[in-house]
Amino acid sequence: MSASPAALILIADGTEEMEFTITYDILVRAGVRTVSAFVQDLAASVLAGPNPPFATCSRGIRIGADMYFDLAQCGPDMYDVVIIPGGARGADTLAGHPSVQELVRRYVERNKLVGMICAGSLAAQTAKLEKQPLTSHPSVKAQLQDDFEYSEDPVVVSDNLITSRGPGTAFPFALTLVEMLCGPQKREEIRGPLVFPSQTPF
Amino acid sequence: MSASPAALILIADGTEEMEFTITYDILVRAGVRTVSAFVQDLAASVLAGPNPPFATCSRGIRIGADMYFDLAQCGPDMYDVVIIPGGARGADTLAGHPSVQELVRRYVERNKLVGMICAGSLAAQTAKLEKQPLTSHPSVKAQLQDDFEYSEDPVVVSDNLITSRGPGTAFPFALTLVEMLCGPQKREEIRGPLVFPSQTPF
Repeated sequence: MSASPAALILIADGTEEMEFTITYDILVRAGVRTVSAFVQDLAASVLAGPNPPFATCSRGIRIGADMYFDLAQCGPDMYDVVIIPGGARGADTLAGHPSVQELVRRYVERNKLVGMICAGSLAAQTAKLEKQPLTSHPSVKAQLQDDFEYSEDPVVVSDNLITSRGPGTAFPFALTLVEMLCGPQKREEIRGPLVFPSQTPF
Repeated sequence: MSASPAALILIADGTEEMEFTITYDILVRAGVRTVSAFVQDLAASVLAGPNPPFATCSRGIRIGADMYFDLAQCGPDMYDVVIIPGGARGADTLAGHPSVQELVRRYVERNKLVGMICAGSLAAQTAKLEKQPLTSHPSVKAQLQDDFEYSEDPVVVSDNLITSRGPGTAFPFALTLVEMLCGPQKREEIRGPLVFPSQTPF
């Protein structure tokens, strides 16, 4: 557990904006240095974009990323966790990108955390991670259930791979990352001001 | 209940990005035509900004708004609901803006919905709405409890004024707006794919 952890969260056109925003915001609240990196769709006709880059997310919200994704600038020597959000089109871009696949493998090899939520869990498959417990959005379960020990728990922790299901599990996903990066006390500290309804199970 | 309702959501520098994003995204999922309008801080030294405008939100995420706020373009003849998110600095800008106060009064007078969450509920006070049930983030309770029938429920519906508490209540807040604009069936329809953990109380 680093005294001042750092997180990298990837974003692309079509990323689910609630999953991105909840994860980023909660990490910042916990004092984690959080950086977003925009991954370009290699199939897009025009690769040059604005600087800094903006993603048009799954429900039309435009979000400014902190930088363009670059494998050399995003490695496990610089961050303690890499996070891959969902949103069908965004997850296709992220999971299908060879440099993102290589990035995921490098984080696993260096024993850093890898977080995937919703269709972002497809990146576990494209990065050829070993068979292990995992969850995802139900819409991509059929693609993943043969290659992983598929679970329907809201958040699945398999050593350093943390997976989750969708926007409705983004809060417990982000709070789990906070706990793993900063400890259970920090998780409790930031939970109060979020004002969850009583009986909320996370 | 309109067949194709429309929602206006205000945003400013310092707006809480989870509250903005969850509400906007959920409304779009329900088929509501949703438009965000950027409100400039009248105390800022430079009022001219980029076009389209971008807000720097409370935890550093930059979000592109669909247009600049303009009272004449944002009235209750054009939208079925106006929503005011929280985030301390953003809510100060929104609640303190005379044209936003006038906008809130016009929606109330025309019997359209007004949604406020977190510190956004301060706008009920600055718009001088009548004493009625209301909630807010706990951090601004002391400012509001004399002028309203203060509640600590996650979502408070007082005729056409819907108020809520913080990021942790943004999902039930947005789902309540969907139910009021589109009916309970639409709320159920969009709830499933969000994949809330079982036992989630909304």
